[in-house]
Amino acid sequence: MGFVRNCWYAAAWSSEVQEQPYHARIIGEHILLFRGEEGQVIALSDTCPHRFAPLHMGKIVGDTIECPYHGLRFNAEGRCAHNPFDPKTKLLAVRISAYPVVERDRFIWIWMGDAERADPALIPDFPWLNQTDVYTMSGEQIMRQPLDYELVLDNLMDLTHGQFVHPTTLGNESIATGALKTRQEGTRVYSDRWNPDGDAPALFVLPGVVQAGDKVDYWNEMRWDPPGAYYLEVGVTLAGRPREEGHFLGSVHMLTPVDEENCVYRYLLFRTFQPGNDEVTRSLEELANYAFRSEDEPMIKAVQDRMAGRAFWDMKPVVLKTDHAGILVRRTLEKLKQMEMAD
Amino acid sequence: MGFVRNCWYAAAWSSEVQEQPYHARIIGEHILLFRGEEGQVIALSDTCPHRFAPLHMGKIVGDTIECPYHGLRFNAEGRCAHNPFDPKTKLLAVRISAYPVVERDRFIWIWMGDAERADPALIPDFPWLNQTDVYTMSGEQIMRQPLDYELVLDNLMDLTHGQFVHPTTLGNESIATGALKTRQEGTRVYSDRWNPDGDAPALFVLPGVVQAGDKVDYWNEMRWDPPGAYYLEVGVTLAGRPREEGHFLGSVHMLTPVDEENCVYRYLLFRTFQPGNDEVTRSLEELANYAFRSEDEPMIKAVQDRMAGRAFWDMKPVVLKTDHAGILVRRTLEKLKQMEMAD
Amino acid sequence: MGFVRNCWYAAAWSSEVQEQPYHARIIGEHILLFRGEEGQVIALSDTCPHRFAPLHMGKIVGDTIECPYHGLRFNAEGRCAHNPFDPKTKLLAVRISAYPVVERDRFIWIWMGDAERADPALIPDFPWLNQTDVYTMSGEQIMRQPLDYELVLDNLMDLTHGQFVHPTTLGNESIATGALKTRQEGTRVYSDRWNPDGDAPALFVLPGVVQAGDKVDYWNEMRWDPPGAYYLEVGVTLAGRPREEGHFLGSVHMLTPVDEENCVYRYLLFRTFQPGNDEVTRSLEELANYAFRSEDEPMIKAVQDRMAGRAFWDMKPVVLKTDHAGILVRRTLEKLKQMEMAD
Repeated sequence: MGFVRNCWYAAAWSSEVQEQPYHARIIGEHILLFRGEEGQVIALSDTCPHRFAPLHMGKIVGDTIECPYHGLRFNAEGRCAHNPFDPKTKLLAVRISAYPVVERDRFIWIWMGDAERADPALIPDFPWLNQTDVYTMSGEQIMRQPLDYELVLDNLMDLTHGQFVHPTTLGNESIATGALKTRQEGTRVYSDRWNPDGDAPALFVLPGVVQAGDKVDYWNEMRWDPPGAYYLEVGVTLAGRPREEGHFLGSVHMLTPVDEENCVYRYLLFRTFQPGNDEVTRSLEELANYAFRSEDEPMIKAVQDRMAGRAFWDMKPVVLKTDHAGILVRRTLEKLKQMEMAD
Repeated sequence: MGFVRNCWYAAAWSSEVQEQPYHARIIGEHILLFRGEEGQVIALSDTCPHRFAPLHMGKIVGDTIECPYHGLRFNAEGRCAHNPFDPKTKLLAVRISAYPVVERDRFIWIWMGDAERADPALIPDFPWLNQTDVYTMSGEQIMRQPLDYELVLDNLMDLTHGQFVHPTTLGNESIATGALKTRQEGTRVYSDRWNPDGDAPALFVLPGVVQAGDKVDYWNEMRWDPPGAYYLEVGVTLAGRPREEGHFLGSVHMLTPVDEENCVYRYLLFRTFQPGNDEVTRSLEELANYAFRSEDEPMIKAVQDRMAGRAFWDMKPVVLKTDHAGILVRRTLEKLKQMEMAD
Repeated sequence: MGFVRNCWYAAAWSSEVQEQPYHARIIGEHILLFRGEEGQVIALSDTCPHRFAPLHMGKIVGDTIECPYHGLRFNAEGRCAHNPFDPKTKLLAVRISAYPVVERDRFIWIWMGDAERADPALIPDFPWLNQTDVYTMSGEQIMRQPLDYELVLDNLMDLTHGQFVHPTTLGNESIATGALKTRQEGTRVYSDRWNPDGDAPALFVLPGVVQAGDKVDYWNEMRWDPPGAYYLEVGVTLAGRPREEGHFLGSVHMLTPVDEENCVYRYLLFRTFQPGNDEVTRSLEELANYAFRSEDEPMIKAVQDRMAGRAFWDMKPVVLKTDHAGILVRRTLEKLKQMEMAD
């Protein structure tokens, strides 16, 4: 399948990269992330060009990383700045890849393609993640999954599997009847569902939100930016009332491909209701964890095993009308890959 | 090596397919078996053509299976009979493979090839399996083995490895001296050994059979039908007396290839002696289990590992006269495969 | 990468091959070693040519091995000397490979190439191993490592990784400053380091050797013979005094490739100091074991994983001056392989 290179991948939560060298594998490449003396994040190839030792097993020395095998040191540009066996001669011609990185909205973003095109303005915006005064937030979650990230993209963009895969957690028979609206703006894809005048989903039956028996308008809105950045908002308001009077649960879902069969799934939940209530926070985290790890992941893994390495389109999938948003996501990624190949 | 397709494979014991969907992998294909409302067995491809979820993870709904991922339902013909997101439009053009199945002699037989040639008359006969009033039977045994089934075929058709691989269980020095007679009728192969006037094998030294010290005529008779159906009869009668006066232990051995490196081995023992004696039944089961699992399987696995994926004939095996029956089995299978390729 | 064939590999310590058949995998081949009636070592292909059973699972019968599956027996020449199903006809045309073997200096040496070239004079000499009256020796050590032996050759020939990989065990900052002298004699490569007038390494601060604070001359001398035979001598003498007045720790390191990703590393330590002191022996064994297993092996494994099957030179390694000896070893092996291919 291959990967898009000229785009910003979420390499890690900012909090994952602290005192120690951090190893990430992204689209098959071994990456080293570490912080220099000013706290700035440096991203280099993780493989020493001398004897191929993983640099993240070494030590941070100032703004350089020291190879654990023979002590060569590499700076933020990837140049060899120190050879312990011949300290007078710097081996500056010896160079490893350095990657553009930006720290924003709690994530470290890395550009895997042509460095000259690395425009930070292309990073999708997640302003909510900084508004800890406005929203009550879950912890930063990390799941390492033995999954092709494109299958996880399908799953996330798909608002129809809930009643089958999550019948008692996220699913809801009534949701299946809501109108699905899909639209695209540039490379961004939206999939919105609007269920007016229905029963309140159990999730929102809480003091200060809605009461059991209330009729509500209910929205599920998903936004995707390539390669794997999702914002999902699920909310309710009393039937016929403005959305501003209601409440919502927002969530950020960040998929980073490790290789063609593995990915890292980072997510975080935030909400407008029951502010500061740790018990609600914990129970939402548990619900999400159960749904993602014990319901979605085994299903996607079963699909991946069944595909046995064959490409999605080669398997001639039946396409339903309700797959529209997911198909747009796949087509957008494919277009980006083709454009890069044509470059 | 490849597999014969136009033949009946034993997919399962009838008893294995009850209320729940049943997943079988046969000659590399994922098969779903389930029972419809009348108890009839339905066999379909186990892969949903929409997003490739394994259908056996879903639910049986009447005479259909419901996909666990998005709820599409497939009927006995493999046609999509229900789309939950658009119930009015049946997607009958969407179709998965349906396989001919027959339930007979305690087994579910499946035809993996061209459905038009699926003649139930081609199923080999195992009448003993229904004669519970005549014979005392062991339980139905199932062993999942990490073995190429052709190597297990070799092992079963080979009456000469006993004294080396089963020295204290099934082996018997005297057996090695008996005359081996091999013959073929159509695709059926027989290998018979007749040891007249020898010592009674320990297995039969039981009240009502023979006594230690008796001289007996002893027979070992193996019958094979492609692809993997064996009937073995081992019996004794007092030296010179008709076989009808003696006793025998019959057994059915049913090999089903999962893929080129795995198979399922189902077997059952039945006998004419010590009727209804559970202790004898249990001790025969234990003996057979030990011999097959702890003596044969490790030996065959060691051979398979040593072959390291190379084809049998490419390794230029030395062929002994005593290999005649096993070689006939291999040659018959090869001829059947060649005929299919020529079709 | 491939392997040199026309050379003597250390197949095992002599003590490893006793009453039982011994299985060794060397340069990808399955080898059987066993002792005949006079105690002589016999080396054959471990695969029965009849049904490919591993012969080492069988029994030694006189000067022959009996196959565990059907009882064929093979003699020291690899000829089939007995067929139990037809004892009168010897199948002497049936033959498996027999390998030249020599038992010398505590090792069993095997010649994997053209038997006519198997000259025992080509076996590298390790006279120290027989001089138990002169030296105090450790036990014979065996490590089975999931490592490409060429990467272990690099590691052993490299006297510069100590301060980074073994900072508290074998490493020593002062060693890094010593002059490295590399030389080659035929296919033998030497790498010697001489550190005059430095602090005594902790290893040698022992009664009867040197005292803390003593200034010493310190030598590290490595000798390699293809394919994987190392002799290392590490010694000290008081600064300016003849080496004969000092003491040394010798060690033999014998690398045998199992296949392209695995090897067996056998080693033994011996010394001139603290003779007969078991506590010193045990503590040296522990030090070496820790350094080789817990420091070197994980580093080499990390390198091997990072190489992901790519060839060393294809990865365009940066070569430092201090790599000279290791590169000579690699070049010598490559030349030997090329010569064999040209044959």
